[in-house]
Amino acid sequence: MLELVSEHACFGGVQRFYKHDSHAIGLPMRFSVFLPAHVSDARLPALFYLAGLTCTEETFMMKAGAQRVAAELGVALIAPDTSPRGAGVPGETDAWDFGVGAGFYLDATQAPWSTHYRMESHIHELRELVTAELPIDPARIGIFGHSMGGHGALTLALRRPDAFKSVSAFAPIAAPMQCPWGRKAFTGYLGGDETAWAQHDATALMGKLRAPFPNGILVDQGLADKFLAEQLYPEAFEAACAQAGQPLTLRRHAGYDHGYYFISTFVEDHLRWHAPQLGA
Amino acid sequence: MLELVSEHACFGGVQRFYKHDSHAIGLPMRFSVFLPAHVSDARLPALFYLAGLTCTEETFMMKAGAQRVAAELGVALIAPDTSPRGAGVPGETDAWDFGVGAGFYLDATQAPWSTHYRMESHIHELRELVTAELPIDPARIGIFGHSMGGHGALTLALRRPDAFKSVSAFAPIAAPMQCPWGRKAFTGYLGGDETAWAQHDATALMGKLRAPFPNGILVDQGLADKFLAEQLYPEAFEAACAQAGQPLTLRRHAGYDHGYYFISTFVEDHLRWHAPQLGA
Repeated sequence: MLELVSEHACFGGVQRFYKHDSHAIGLPMRFSVFLPAHVSDARLPALFYLAGLTCTEETFMMKAGAQRVAAELGVALIAPDTSPRGAGVPGETDAWDFGVGAGFYLDATQAPWSTHYRMESHIHELRELVTAELPIDPARIGIFGHSMGGHGALTLALRRPDAFKSVSAFAPIAAPMQCPWGRKAFTGYLGGDETAWAQHDATALMGKLRAPFPNGILVDQGLADKFLAEQLYPEAFEAACAQAGQPLTLRRHAGYDHGYYFISTFVEDHLRWHAPQLGA
Repeated sequence: MLELVSEHACFGGVQRFYKHDSHAIGLPMRFSVFLPAHVSDARLPALFYLAGLTCTEETFMMKAGAQRVAAELGVALIAPDTSPRGAGVPGETDAWDFGVGAGFYLDATQAPWSTHYRMESHIHELRELVTAELPIDPARIGIFGHSMGGHGALTLALRRPDAFKSVSAFAPIAAPMQCPWGRKAFTGYLGGDETAWAQHDATALMGKLRAPFPNGILVDQGLADKFLAEQLYPEAFEAACAQAGQPLTLRRHAGYDHGYYFISTFVEDHLRWHAPQLGA
């Protein structure tokens, strides 16, 4: 089922890259896993990390420096890819913000994207796969992500709070219906009907809920992020959380930008914030 | 003198990428610097990190996760590139282990390499440049590196113990005269006379010294490193250190390979080992 592509000792645990035939996507997909050292019959809590535009299953594991803290806390890390690869949809590699590397963690409903671009189903498929084939506890899974993957983490958690016990994000696209990246992706993947879009917009989803994560949501945002004004809208999400009675810790960091030097600085805080919610 | 290419807030300090016209190389060169938060008139201790084959000035800063500990200790990090870029020597991009990305931290004596491939002079030029233009204390500089850069760190430190107060390495090419990578590079850059090679071989250099680093040298080596048997020869360096009365801590790590998942696991130990020697 899972084909091991490579394996690297890391902080006393193991960093692995896997390949598998994805039923959700209908193509081979790759993902990465960090497993901390553990006793042989342990079931580990785990955090899914969803990456941003142009990234792969390798980006977070290579750049964020999260394994050290994950090893200390005994939390597994799982990073999917950001889109199907090799779907062969005409134009899928023409833009960096739509198509390959830009699946937006939703199931496309519009042809020709709807055949393979089914990233939300893929994340849930992965959730089941890793709990079946790796020592991961299905009842103790959290999710976080960055930018497009912050959007993914927030929306997947809000759509399935039964599947994810905790959620946080770095510089998420927090109101995609209001920004160019989101409007382009939703138009392409979901068509012109904005009622369908609202099912994949964290701010719109929160507007219909009542405190879905009573332990809170953590969001870190750099104030030197060049995408902040036009694409991210954390203030819209903040207002929706206030309306919904959803506790939100939105930290605004002067000087920090949109990249992994920002993420690496605060990733330890995210892991330590998720850990108690996952019983780690 | 220094052209700032980019700047990123990171762990309360700043990650910078610079470009400058290198006199030593005769071409523009890039390097990266991490500066921890510091009082305005401080002079910081610093660690040069020399990267391995195919790497650039970005690799270590992006993959090793060293900034967290450097910020805590108040140590600056400086990472040069691994070769000239754009020298235009015929064939310089034909191989990954010679030419571009593979400067071996020495000054070539053989035409056509000798015009631009002068990486040892470049490192010393950088040492003077950063102490002149950045808040770095010239009397408190250490050096470390990985693989080809581990060779570079050991040889540059052994050739100029006055310039570097401390030295360590990850999986260094510790006896390049004895291995294919080293023999190829030395033949190309230095010609056929092996007496010239011995000036750039850590094991050979140590054989002519008496405990040049009385505080010791730290070397980490993974035992699942696929280059260990053919290319690295830590045991030869270990024997030379024993002969020279040079204290050496050579740690052999079961399961670890040659990559940055290995380096990231142990980089904290290296920074904490250098820090007291640099008065940090």
